Amino acid sequence: GIRMTSFESIMDFAEFKLNSDGLIPVIVQDYKTNEVLMMAYMNEDAFEHTIKTGKMTYYSRSRQERWIKGETSGHFQYVKMLTVDCDKDTLLAKVEQIGAACHTGNRTCFFQSIAGNDFDAKNPLQVFESVYKTI
Amino acid sequence: GIRMTSFESIMDFAEFKLNSDGLIPVIVQDYKTNEVLMMAYMNEDAFEHTIKTGKMTYYSRSRQERWIKGETSGHFQYVKMLTVDCDKDTLLAKVEQIGAACHTGNRTCFFQSIAGNDFDAKNPLQVFESVYKTI
Repeated sequence: GIRMTSFESIMDFAEFKLNSDGLIPVIVQDYKTNEVLMMAYMNEDAFEHTIKTGKMTYYSRSRQERWIKGETSGHFQYVKMLTVDCDKDTLLAKVEQIGAACHTGNRTCFFQSIAGNDFDAKNPLQVFESVYKTI
Repeated sequence: GIRMTSFESIMDFAEFKLNSDGLIPVIVQDYKTNEVLMMAYMNEDAFEHTIKTGKMTYYSRSRQERWIKGETSGHFQYVKMLTVDCDKDTLLAKVEQIGAACHTGNRTCFFQSIAGNDFDAKNPLQVFESVYKTI
């Protein structure tokens, strides 16, 4: 069905500190698993559209236009929560991701490990030992 | 004690696509909880230093110099895994965070919600209903 959940932002876009391209980077995270899915950028139009429609909307740097994520693929990202960082130059979005976030068909755009490994990061024994050392 | 875990990267810094400032953004995530802690930027020197020492090292845009995270505060970030995204313009680091990631003393730099809320994002019933709708 058609979903449309409007939000209100307690902060104006004008309060954000923009990067050299006049945009603010947005980290996108699965609201259930906390998996980081992708990073994209917003201008004021994209931010207002996101807040108004509850669907993550970016500024496409390659196409130089508004990019409603999922508009062509159906892989919408529904806003659960938006957070700004301490120096107001980065946003974090917790979303409900429909389908894959990545255009390659991977659930996340971060599917290529370049150093270290998932075993070290997820190995229960190592996690336990790390917690044990702390307590 | 002194910890020093060297890594090797299967990808050269030259293969990354840099932003308008000649840097690559790095999303930093707790390797145990997947909480997003902060975002910072690397130049080649910072990337090589991170790989060589296993301690997250950035390029400080404000001080315009190498920034070994935790060097003054003790709040080091030990590398568990580095991942690059599909278009090679963003890095994701899973780290073991010592102390607080944020200079404000908060564990994460993303402590200010601007829209939506944590209840929606974490409410077990809503998460369950969302999973139920999918299956």
